[in-house]
Amino acid sequence: MTPWDLPVALRELQEQLGESSVLSRPEEMAGYERGTRYGSGRAACVVRPADVAQVQAVVHWARRHSLRLIAQGANTGLVAAASPEAVGDQVIVSLERMRHTTELDADNRTVRVSAGVLLQTLNARLAEAGLWFPIDLGANPSIGGMIAANTGGTRLLRYGDVRHNLLGLEVVLADESATHLELMSGLRKDNSGLDIKQLFVGTSGVFGIIVAAVLEAHPLPRQQATALLVPRDASSALDLLRRTESRFGELLSSFEVMSRAAMGCVFRFQPRVRNPFEGGAVPEQAILLELACTLPRTSSFDLQQMLEEFLAELLEDEAALLSDALLGKDEQTWALRHAISESLREAGKVIAFDISVRRSALQPFREAAIAGLARLWPYLKVCDFGHFGDGGLHFNVVWPHDCGVEPQAQTIDAVRDFVYRMVVEEFGGSFSAEHGIGPYNLGIYRQFTPLARQRLAGELQRVVNPERLLGTFHFGPAF
Amino acid sequence: MTPWDLPVALRELQEQLGESSVLSRPEEMAGYERGTRYGSGRAACVVRPADVAQVQAVVHWARRHSLRLIAQGANTGLVAAASPEAVGDQVIVSLERMRHTTELDADNRTVRVSAGVLLQTLNARLAEAGLWFPIDLGANPSIGGMIAANTGGTRLLRYGDVRHNLLGLEVVLADESATHLELMSGLRKDNSGLDIKQLFVGTSGVFGIIVAAVLEAHPLPRQQATALLVPRDASSALDLLRRTESRFGELLSSFEVMSRAAMGCVFRFQPRVRNPFEGGAVPEQAILLELACTLPRTSSFDLQQMLEEFLAELLEDEAALLSDALLGKDEQTWALRHAISESLREAGKVIAFDISVRRSALQPFREAAIAGLARLWPYLKVCDFGHFGDGGLHFNVVWPHDCGVEPQAQTIDAVRDFVYRMVVEEFGGSFSAEHGIGPYNLGIYRQFTPLARQRLAGELQRVVNPERLLGTFHFGPAF
Repeated sequence: MTPWDLPVALRELQEQLGESSVLSRPEEMAGYERGTRYGSGRAACVVRPADVAQVQAVVHWARRHSLRLIAQGANTGLVAAASPEAVGDQVIVSLERMRHTTELDADNRTVRVSAGVLLQTLNARLAEAGLWFPIDLGANPSIGGMIAANTGGTRLLRYGDVRHNLLGLEVVLADESATHLELMSGLRKDNSGLDIKQLFVGTSGVFGIIVAAVLEAHPLPRQQATALLVPRDASSALDLLRRTESRFGELLSSFEVMSRAAMGCVFRFQPRVRNPFEGGAVPEQAILLELACTLPRTSSFDLQQMLEEFLAELLEDEAALLSDALLGKDEQTWALRHAISESLREAGKVIAFDISVRRSALQPFREAAIAGLARLWPYLKVCDFGHFGDGGLHFNVVWPHDCGVEPQAQTIDAVRDFVYRMVVEEFGGSFSAEHGIGPYNLGIYRQFTPLARQRLAGELQRVVNPERLLGTFHFGPAF
Repeated sequence: MTPWDLPVALRELQEQLGESSVLSRPEEMAGYERGTRYGSGRAACVVRPADVAQVQAVVHWARRHSLRLIAQGANTGLVAAASPEAVGDQVIVSLERMRHTTELDADNRTVRVSAGVLLQTLNARLAEAGLWFPIDLGANPSIGGMIAANTGGTRLLRYGDVRHNLLGLEVVLADESATHLELMSGLRKDNSGLDIKQLFVGTSGVFGIIVAAVLEAHPLPRQQATALLVPRDASSALDLLRRTESRFGELLSSFEVMSRAAMGCVFRFQPRVRNPFEGGAVPEQAILLELACTLPRTSSFDLQQMLEEFLAELLEDEAALLSDALLGKDEQTWALRHAISESLREAGKVIAFDISVRRSALQPFREAAIAGLARLWPYLKVCDFGHFGDGGLHFNVVWPHDCGVEPQAQTIDAVRDFVYRMVVEEFGGSFSAEHGIGPYNLGIYRQFTPLARQRLAGELQRVVNPERLLGTFHFGPAF
């Protein structure tokens, strides 16, 4: 579309949707053009439809005027999948006005939400009924965005990711008829054909515009127990996980591992976070273990006491997997875990890796990667931590401010290539465990996804988004 | 293919795969042509590939000779999706020889299996490591078949269906290059693009030939507690479910409801099953409630005792949801539940419905359907039971042998139409909760699936099975 046609197109849309639904002044658009944490670009305009019919109207309008669309929720994504490109020819479709539906069906233990509802708003509503949507993460995304990213978080081990808790979806396609797909059954058991909604989960909004969903809610735990474990050495963590799972099964809700380097950054840069270790000696690894249960705490059923007994057994066990166990307050323990990301940024330039491997490969991968990096770039520091229980690892490499070498783009690229090759090619892991695919890691996707799989994904995307009208990228091969 | 070409094609395949891999004599083929419980047809031949390369060779061979293929596991399906058509021009690809891989990764709590491995074999192997694959059903299917059907069963409430426990898949497509898709990551957290494996789950084997999978295994429970509850009336069952979930959360593993009519048939036709109710008076409904936990039974943590305390509270509660609670032996309680299907067949001709609705709609649906049927066909008897906790209902309508009216095909069709219309159109439910789609219910699929959804499913199927070489049906519209 040539620039002088845009005002005409905008006026047409404003007449159809109402003036306040279309934003085009730079100062109005700024908050949509730049992501909360990552991503930025320029938009032709921002459209804020209020209902499904308006979303369909936007698709028809965009097709008439040959404008490209990009769907956006709360703009909290980490891979720029909701950010427009730099050239400014895309229309941002913000779902933020579609946040008025939160229909709880307590008997079905499900909730029907429109795409713009925020996670915290949803959980506040569910809490009134003794329920929650147990996808835990350090942001307040919209439900539509969470589905598009298939978010995981710190309690995936127990509750699964968004896909596991999705019982219905409503989508508008960017095809010729702006098809409105209503897949909102809310059923737990339904094998009445292809489960089409799976296509829109974890595909960053480029398969269709998610407008509503039915989510499964879970009973809120009535008691929790947390401990900070110090394994004998790094190879004991996995044995500890097995022992814990075998004992507590479905009651284990988190098993997060933090490396000495990661914890060290927290204690150095965030003195408010207390160092809980004896004599302040930070161990090689620490494990944040959390149990949770809906059964109320009674004198005969006390999860904290059960955990303490279990840890006492482990401390006395001849296998000697555990060298210490700290039973601090839940909040302090989690505060340490949550303070890591910020502390690393204070320590230096962070080369972040959102990866996962089979749990059995976690320790071998860590050892190989840490040794390889130390050999090639001895001034870099691996400050890893992660969701050990589900194989997820925030394998963050810090280029310290005080290491005497200035960060160089070429070296950073080499570090990325080294780590990604190792995780994918040697250890069969994922180059994107939680964040999904977007412009930030599209190159990695193309490099490490077998061509046959890219082709197939591209062909499937073409079925629902035939002219690539929607989104800044496609899953097919680049050529 | 004209019949006189077939011997030539068979010889070619035998030379390539070995004589014993190709069966073509009627007596050899009979067991593959007829399903264990449902479905029958005639096959051009039966091919039993031993590995992935042989499966690919079969696809290439079939394409050269214009022969159609149908994948078959243990042949236990209920909708004839693994049965060849009557005309005898399809080649059955039996995966039964691909059952030698059961690689347990205990640290990852996953198991890699080839498609022909049987559920019982798998669980025997897992039990050695204190694990199980918790999809419980009244058959011994192959893993490939379970994935193609996305089986659910009696513990879905706690563990989810097969889709929820699938961490990897290996598929051979029936396309030009017999594409071998390796999606065997075994990762819990992986958002590195479209999750292509979802296409092959619950699509009855017509999207591709499943050759292997990675499954998530779960710790075996160390204690269970079972009770048979008698709700005050049918409307109390749902309240009881909510109370139970709120109390026991993740420890609730089964919540099965049986109607008086269904239980009555068991006591009438299977005298070995003891009637546990006071004075033998069968109540309007009974609920089989099961709790399970990996924590070992101790004097302070005894699930059976906790359940008894909970039930005592309910019996004294002013809401009076419960009129009785029987704490029988687990096996006897389950024996009653498992005896229903067989008993119904002795009572008369069973018009079976494998349906589901939102849990909140279960009781309204039952009431409306039972009243409607009684009005139209007073001699029919509704003997329903089901997986109340996940909204599943085996809404079986029995045409009693002794009702004085002979079963008529036209009436049976009318009954089917009446029930399906009600469940789908009035209650937003599913016409196939557990069994999937196959020739037996394809007509129902076409009748009740919105055309836009059928078109989309058909287009997606075409991407992976372009010439409909594989399977006896397709998900696209008939015309």
